[in-house]
Amino acid sequence: QLKLDLNGTQPVDVGEYITQLPEQQRAIAFRLLNKHQAIDVFEYLPSEVQEQIINSLHDVQVAQIVEAMSPDERAELFDELPAGVVKRLLQELSPEERQATATILGYAEGTAGRVMTTEYVRLRDGLTVGEALSKIRRQDEDKETIYYAYVTDDNHKLVSVVSLRQLLFTFPEVLITDIASTRVIKVRTQMPQEEVAQIMKRYDLIAVPVVDREERLVGIVTIDDVVDILEEEATEDIQKLAGVSGGDEQAFSSPLITLRKRLPWLFGVMLLYIGASSAIAPFQSTISMVPVLAVIMPLFSNTGGTVAIQALTVTIRGLGVGEVTPQDTFKILRKELQAGLGTAVALGLTMIMLSLIWAPPHERWVSLVAGTVMAVNTLVAVTLGTLLPMGLKRLKLDPALVSGPLVTTILDAVGFMIFLTLISTALHIFHLKP
Amino acid sequence: QLKLDLNGTQPVDVGEYITQLPEQQRAIAFRLLNKHQAIDVFEYLPSEVQEQIINSLHDVQVAQIVEAMSPDERAELFDELPAGVVKRLLQELSPEERQATATILGYAEGTAGRVMTTEYVRLRDGLTVGEALSKIRRQDEDKETIYYAYVTDDNHKLVSVVSLRQLLFTFPEVLITDIASTRVIKVRTQMPQEEVAQIMKRYDLIAVPVVDREERLVGIVTIDDVVDILEEEATEDIQKLAGVSGGDEQAFSSPLITLRKRLPWLFGVMLLYIGASSAIAPFQSTISMVPVLAVIMPLFSNTGGTVAIQALTVTIRGLGVGEVTPQDTFKILRKELQAGLGTAVALGLTMIMLSLIWAPPHERWVSLVAGTVMAVNTLVAVTLGTLLPMGLKRLKLDPALVSGPLVTTILDAVGFMIFLTLISTALHIFHLKP
Ligand SMILES: [Mg+2]
Ligand SMILES: [Mg+2]
Ligand SMILES: [Mg+2]
Ligand SMILES: [Mg+2]
Ligand SMILES: [Mg+2]
Ligand SMILES: [Mg+2]
Ligand SMILES: [Mg+2]
Ligand SMILES: [Mg+2]
Ligand SMILES: [Mg+2]
Ligand SMILES: [Mg+2]
Ligand SMILES: [Mg+2]
Ligand SMILES: [Mg+2]
Ligand SMILES: [Mg+2]
Repeated sequence: QLKLDLNGTQPVDVGEYITQLPEQQRAIAFRLLNKHQAIDVFEYLPSEVQEQIINSLHDVQVAQIVEAMSPDERAELFDELPAGVVKRLLQELSPEERQATATILGYAEGTAGRVMTTEYVRLRDGLTVGEALSKIRRQDEDKETIYYAYVTDDNHKLVSVVSLRQLLFTFPEVLITDIASTRVIKVRTQMPQEEVAQIMKRYDLIAVPVVDREERLVGIVTIDDVVDILEEEATEDIQKLAGVSGGDEQAFSSPLITLRKRLPWLFGVMLLYIGASSAIAPFQSTISMVPVLAVIMPLFSNTGGTVAIQALTVTIRGLGVGEVTPQDTFKILRKELQAGLGTAVALGLTMIMLSLIWAPPHERWVSLVAGTVMAVNTLVAVTLGTLLPMGLKRLKLDPALVSGPLVTTILDAVGFMIFLTLISTALHIFHLKP
Repeated sequence: QLKLDLNGTQPVDVGEYITQLPEQQRAIAFRLLNKHQAIDVFEYLPSEVQEQIINSLHDVQVAQIVEAMSPDERAELFDELPAGVVKRLLQELSPEERQATATILGYAEGTAGRVMTTEYVRLRDGLTVGEALSKIRRQDEDKETIYYAYVTDDNHKLVSVVSLRQLLFTFPEVLITDIASTRVIKVRTQMPQEEVAQIMKRYDLIAVPVVDREERLVGIVTIDDVVDILEEEATEDIQKLAGVSGGDEQAFSSPLITLRKRLPWLFGVMLLYIGASSAIAPFQSTISMVPVLAVIMPLFSNTGGTVAIQALTVTIRGLGVGEVTPQDTFKILRKELQAGLGTAVALGLTMIMLSLIWAPPHERWVSLVAGTVMAVNTLVAVTLGTLLPMGLKRLKLDPALVSGPLVTTILDAVGFMIFLTLISTALHIFHLKP
């Protein structure tokens, strides 16, 4: 009955169906699939389900499935499995698949080498179009894509690329060197996966060749994996900005994982605030003399924080999508300060008006100080929001390390310190006691 | 010299080069391209540069370029041009291209119909593989992709799909109905582009067919455009969360555009705060009696705000990538409250400790109130962060309308009100005057 239901269904849907079953039923359901279905579906299971199924199947079945996986998916799985299991599985692989897996696992996580697959179509220099097409037909079986073929020389160096479209629309006796493009867009094994994704997006590629230091072709990265990478990277940035450590919490993550990802920045805020509080604590008497400050300060903090996070977010996203680089720092800062000046005037004036409304007559002078500090704070906010992520990027660190909570807490400390210092100085100088 | 430089360069790179030239030089540079280059490069120019170039070229040249554009890119351009120019350009198009453009522009912005192209390979039911292949060769010229062919019946209804890979590896006399898949993954014209992107990501497609209400094939959406859509949608969510209206500011947007995108939420925060201030203003005497409150309240506000934004961000991103739907609201809320309980205890206790350090001896009782309200505030924060975006999504509105500044300001108002009410009640009941 299960077999009937699954017939013709997409592997990813079957995988999702199996994943949502209770743990004990997953392996049973998986064993109802025929061999081809099993091979197709296995790649789409989350790694913990893959591990369960590996533990419940016979070694022969496991060997067949793991042998048939694409090398990139297999590398991802091996990354998650206990070392002992990996060792056993590696021994059962054919020499070619073992070699492919070892190659991929040899590159650092998050690089082109780690996300590439070795199942691409390679043609030797000097073939004709007809020979190339029949070579492709013979190679087909387990290539990720046959829509691009990569031409290499005797030393395995990448020479040119030709699309299946070009091959199909050219006479069979033409040499591929005559139609293949030698201006190949390619990436290095150690290139960060984000940059690989940016390149494929820019040039609208469905696959990009990966070469090593000696320009030898070692694999290709395909668009389906790049789509996942782009999504992961965007999630990482958005969550890190919000103060979720690691940037990889899922909506369905367990409460414990959620706590582990969120508490660090919450304690971070509190810790930072212990520092910030030393900017406020000495002024308790000032505040009790001018209680309207207690109404003004949260507005001050919320507005300034929003200004900083706006600038921070636009900068981090600009870096994330490759729209700007650290070389643009001063251009961006200039623009932020220009817009910031307008913002500063608008917020400063509004602050003055609001404080005038809230303050009792003898505290109205505070509004001028509040407006001025609000304006200054706005300029500090856009400067921090721009320079901090740009600086991190220039140091080759993740710009999203500057989370929102970090910037807003720093800004509060600086802003309150200036504000309260000015107010208490004014109180002293002008003897403006209530 | 320019001509030599550009030879063999990718159109997108030439487009970028032209775009960064001073305005007066762009059209001159563009006119140095030969006809084929001009056609290729034009699609990669931003619409304001396209408009400049259209205004500077002869009508005949413009007609040639616009005729050669892909219908989806042309529709995008026409969307930006003044109505008069569009009318003139439409008249110069061939009937087929005019029809294609009109079809696409007939669908709402942000839907599958608007981002699709009409240049796909269509095969009639009943062909053999050999006939199909030669039909494809004849159709090739300006198809977006030839790697999938879509089979339709006499009424233009989508029947099945066959890949070029399948066609190439099947004997020419086999009927395509025998190898084509009738379980076609397809989308409707009115489907939001985000959902189209989610489907292509899920099934690892490089193109997806678009059908109308009568199941007639009208176009295809290709992966290169979906990659751009995914990026735009992620940018939109991340910026809206940060309080950037529209979510489409670019790092290089002009200061005026920047102001227009950022001021609305800044004034929003101030306006909301006028409401919130009515929660604080009546308590000015309380604050001046218990000045440690001025030190505690900002910590309270920063930490509670961070908790809310963390939950809000994980929920909005989960909705954005299709990981959760409004049906999961209670599952997610339960998880958030479970994690929130742990957070509430941790933050409540820390708040008690910190207030004990900051408070002078006669104000130490405040720390218990602060810790309790911090804990309650944490639970309110995760609830708001989950329910607000889920609610909007259920109402078919954009969940990212709940920006960070909105939630944190609401939370401040609620939190301060509870906190200050409790403190002043305690002062009254226990006559705890300093
Ligand atoms: Mg293999
Ligand atoms: Mg692109
Ligand atoms: Mg792959
Ligand atoms: Mg994949
Ligand atoms: Mg993968
Ligand atoms: Mg990353
Ligand atoms: Mg990143
Ligand atoms: Mg055309
Ligand atoms: Mg996918
Ligand atoms: Mg397109
Ligand atoms: Mg496009
Ligand atoms: Mg949208
Ligand atoms: Mg959206």
